[in-house]
Amino acid sequence: MTVYQATASAPVNIACIKYWGKRDTKLILPTNSSLSVTLDQDHLRSTTTSRADASFSKDRLWLNGKEEEIKEGGRMSTCIREMKRLRKEEVEDKNPNEPKLSTFNVHICSHNNFPTAAGLASSASGFAALVSSLANLYALPVSASDLSLIARQGSGSACRSLFGGFVAWQMGSNPTGVDSLAVQVAEQSHWPDIHALICVVSDDKKGTSSTSGMQRTVETSALLQHRIKEVVPRRMEEISKAIMERDFDAFARVTMADSNQFHAVALDTEPPIFYMNDVSRAIIGLIVEYNRVGVEEGRGYRAAYTYDAGPNAVIYAPKENVKEIVELVVSYFPQREGSFKDNFGLFGGGQVVGRIPAGFNENVAKRFEVGAVKGLIHTRVGDGPRKLGDGEALLNGEGLPKNLA
Amino acid sequence: MTVYQATASAPVNIACIKYWGKRDTKLILPTNSSLSVTLDQDHLRSTTTSRADASFSKDRLWLNGKEEEIKEGGRMSTCIREMKRLRKEEVEDKNPNEPKLSTFNVHICSHNNFPTAAGLASSASGFAALVSSLANLYALPVSASDLSLIARQGSGSACRSLFGGFVAWQMGSNPTGVDSLAVQVAEQSHWPDIHALICVVSDDKKGTSSTSGMQRTVETSALLQHRIKEVVPRRMEEISKAIMERDFDAFARVTMADSNQFHAVALDTEPPIFYMNDVSRAIIGLIVEYNRVGVEEGRGYRAAYTYDAGPNAVIYAPKENVKEIVELVVSYFPQREGSFKDNFGLFGGGQVVGRIPAGFNENVAKRFEVGAVKGLIHTRVGDGPRKLGDGEALLNGEGLPKNLA
Repeated sequence: MTVYQATASAPVNIACIKYWGKRDTKLILPTNSSLSVTLDQDHLRSTTTSRADASFSKDRLWLNGKEEEIKEGGRMSTCIREMKRLRKEEVEDKNPNEPKLSTFNVHICSHNNFPTAAGLASSASGFAALVSSLANLYALPVSASDLSLIARQGSGSACRSLFGGFVAWQMGSNPTGVDSLAVQVAEQSHWPDIHALICVVSDDKKGTSSTSGMQRTVETSALLQHRIKEVVPRRMEEISKAIMERDFDAFARVTMADSNQFHAVALDTEPPIFYMNDVSRAIIGLIVEYNRVGVEEGRGYRAAYTYDAGPNAVIYAPKENVKEIVELVVSYFPQREGSFKDNFGLFGGGQVVGRIPAGFNENVAKRFEVGAVKGLIHTRVGDGPRKLGDGEALLNGEGLPKNLA
Repeated sequence: MTVYQATASAPVNIACIKYWGKRDTKLILPTNSSLSVTLDQDHLRSTTTSRADASFSKDRLWLNGKEEEIKEGGRMSTCIREMKRLRKEEVEDKNPNEPKLSTFNVHICSHNNFPTAAGLASSASGFAALVSSLANLYALPVSASDLSLIARQGSGSACRSLFGGFVAWQMGSNPTGVDSLAVQVAEQSHWPDIHALICVVSDDKKGTSSTSGMQRTVETSALLQHRIKEVVPRRMEEISKAIMERDFDAFARVTMADSNQFHAVALDTEPPIFYMNDVSRAIIGLIVEYNRVGVEEGRGYRAAYTYDAGPNAVIYAPKENVKEIVELVVSYFPQREGSFKDNFGLFGGGQVVGRIPAGFNENVAKRFEVGAVKGLIHTRVGDGPRKLGDGEALLNGEGLPKNLA
């Protein structure tokens, strides 16, 4: 008896031009295009195993070891249905000898290698891994952009995790959503020097979910339409050019401006939405001052902060600056031992000691207590979804999660 | 020998539609019209005595007991020069018998009855009191709007402190600034029920000055022009209508939306400007929830927050709600004894005890430590500048500050 099973992993992506607002909430069609950097799966990833079997009584899903209901008409259900449809249309209808996997139920088991508590959106990597594993299972002869159309319907930003490197989500114009898909702007190998430092920030306030928050912004912000029509199209061009030319200064300026503007339109919402807190503000203050020194020294901008729908900072920087930035951040945000994920061995396994760069005005922020920044993760631009071997499957011989079996 | 001396007091004003951006930095011509509520001078005021004397060797100024230099070409110097010009043109040129006060030097002594540390902008009340006292000294036959043209050149928002009640600063269009002046939308007596609770918030971060901040916004924000052209004109009409109809729900909606949008364009600046901190955010959360309950109960919005270029909240509310709001704020921000200025005797001199209104979701904010909100001041809509008697003069017989003599 043949086992129809496939495993894939997919990366997290962090946008430089932010997605905020849907023009169609069911199909998840955005009000503006967006652009992101795919982060390295060696450090942050979702892994998903999918299996189709005629004996399965229904579609089932396990997330991080816990079974989750697949709600009828929900996003997960939509993605599975669309993938089955592609299997039928692209494989079974064209070649009657292929097994009718589209008629089988599936078991899906997914796992993130980073804690949900880190506040990193796992829906993007999660839906990208789901779609990738099903595409492998179904042996679909389709492109990553085609798959992005389906991942998008699971979670908008998931469509960008179908590619490595630098990825644009083109908003499209067709009401069916057929042209609202991800395309690769540049491969990881085009600009591997882009590294990222994720600062995991504590928050005692429960944030507004991005799904409900962005719709409130669409409905009530007096500034959003101007952002959508006038600002984002220009910035998409500017940042694409910066990436093509490996111009970090320009990349940083656009990235920070768009993070600011996303939070500005969130604040322009009724009632206002705040995702950044005093710690986030202080990190911005550090990067602004760090860049001021860089400009004064004729080196231009050397780091770029960006914030998604939460207080965590992601700092993009050329690799050579990351050690200095870690030392700077640690000077203001003392870390518990082991809370810095030194994935590139910058400190050779030793303790990180804070250090303020020459010329830096120390008074731009106060020193915070231990735990204000809970952890730091050093990563970089990475590749797209990976097809994994059976040795890494998350389902056992019976098609149930290995760790629950 | 005749003593030429006059004393006036002027109120603080807090804008509902915010002034943020100059089209002419020398003349202080704004990029948009604005509208404010004048607060009661019984609680917050600047008092200024001006004296002209042929024996004075130069113009001199004392602020809160300390002599300040009057810089050539500076804002203070401009105001004094313009007032002398009005004296000459409106009085001395028309009636040759009048003493030539415009040729005398002046001594000016000014005092605020609220500490600078409270973070309340004193420049508006200060320049309004200066201009008012000089107008009295010079017996000028001009209107408050005429005087507002000069106060505006001292500090933009000062022009609105020339009137009581509800005051618009019309941006005007003439490059000379002749039509950029304050007009009264409604008197205090039209809607005396509008009270205000000022929450003085601690901040350990030195903020960006509004003068430099607003120019950075003008130069770098991609959203400001849309606010100026499309949003503010509509809101000026909406809030004027709300005031004329004493419609607190509409007044509150526009006031909060415009406070949010002012901070949104500040955040959309490069580098971004933050005036609100986590305490400010928490107070917003309380008012949003308080209003949610009000709407649910069919009572509409019952309070409106607004924030200027700092972390302090000003909460406008109908008088009947203020006690409940104080109890609510104190529940989350415990106060030291005496830190609530109970100007209307709401608590009969007793201790304020926190109380959460029925139906209020307590989890919208955490309880902060004592001192996060340093003090609360209860005030209300008030009258315009007052002419005071010689008994309240700040200068002694020699024309020097009384407390320094």
